[in-house]
Amino acid sequence: MEGKEISQAVIKRLPRYYRYLGELMESGVERISSNELSERMKVTASQIRQDLNNFGGFGQQGYGYNVKYLYEEIAKILGIDKCHNMIIIGAGNLGQAIANYTNFEKRGFVVKGLFDIDPNLKGVMVRGIEICGIEEMEEFIRENHIEIAALTIPKTKAAEMAERVVDSGIKAIWNFAHTDLNVPADVIVENVHLSESLMRLSYNIAKNART
Amino acid sequence: MEGKEISQAVIKRLPRYYRYLGELMESGVERISSNELSERMKVTASQIRQDLNNFGGFGQQGYGYNVKYLYEEIAKILGIDKCHNMIIIGAGNLGQAIANYTNFEKRGFVVKGLFDIDPNLKGVMVRGIEICGIEEMEEFIRENHIEIAALTIPKTKAAEMAERVVDSGIKAIWNFAHTDLNVPADVIVENVHLSESLMRLSYNIAKNART
Repeated sequence: MEGKEISQAVIKRLPRYYRYLGELMESGVERISSNELSERMKVTASQIRQDLNNFGGFGQQGYGYNVKYLYEEIAKILGIDKCHNMIIIGAGNLGQAIANYTNFEKRGFVVKGLFDIDPNLKGVMVRGIEICGIEEMEEFIRENHIEIAALTIPKTKAAEMAERVVDSGIKAIWNFAHTDLNVPADVIVENVHLSESLMRLSYNIAKNART
Repeated sequence: MEGKEISQAVIKRLPRYYRYLGELMESGVERISSNELSERMKVTASQIRQDLNNFGGFGQQGYGYNVKYLYEEIAKILGIDKCHNMIIIGAGNLGQAIANYTNFEKRGFVVKGLFDIDPNLKGVMVRGIEICGIEEMEEFIRENHIEIAALTIPKTKAAEMAERVVDSGIKAIWNFAHTDLNVPADVIVENVHLSESLMRLSYNIAKNART
């Protein structure tokens, strides 16, 4: 598996496979054919075969996929077989919502700290984590081996904060600010641009109205 | 423009063009060449020419794009030249975060109502909107011409709520619950699966660590 390059399109689809395989495991299913999985996921069986053959876990023809094996292989590929320490910068509603999602922690994303510039939020507890002032951030990142910083702040502050976390050794930014960040090539940026999602939705409303 | 089919890949990129064109307008830029836009957006100039030639707004060679014209054309295509009434189902942190984003309203997405099953939230005001009990939802949708329902609820409740809003005439669901919804073909679902985004991020951390 090591060193094998998997296309970005497959990577995009992997989390969804992971979710379905997890649900199958929970309901006690040990093997599944590409046809059955195709029906559940509403993806063609040939697409599934192409995608999953990147990871093995298939027995003889007609015997189906080994659910647990595939689930674990995909977890490894996605890097969620390990823990990742995360901080959240911006402890408003969105930051607190993320801190409160226990599901992220189950997947190995552990929120270690919450930071905000608002002095009124300082000391407030969110799921056992105390909101700290932004001036404590750099030291906290270094001392707690933080890999991921979620930026849940307005776009006007995003560039400055991105620079500060990168300088402190952050490997990846989960960016909710509605702007593109300029970071060194080895720093990962994963954007969640909610307003772009909403525009795609309204595009489809408009399209339905035209037809 | 009417009836012309634009590829999904272009549609996916449009909100980003829209954002950059908006920023250019704000800074008083009236025309821009594909080369300049390419530098700002870090997309190849030929990609930009291909994408934007779907919408016109280009003068003679070397004269550049008319920023305002393109901005308005893209707004029309995206359906954000009109207002869309929205409700939010689930008034926890995430639901309240969305209700508080004034930027969505600037783009024409107007939050008209907030609903929750938690009786403790009933009557709480969020940016001037009162949180209502879920039993009031159906009537509210019909009386207020609501087009979009944002589902910011756990996945266990999502299927039931999706069915209820669809039965009440909702055209589109903005789904934050981590599950796939089964809805009639004419109902639009736009998913925001945050944990999938986080997995793509950790995939890239793992990939960087391997190389």
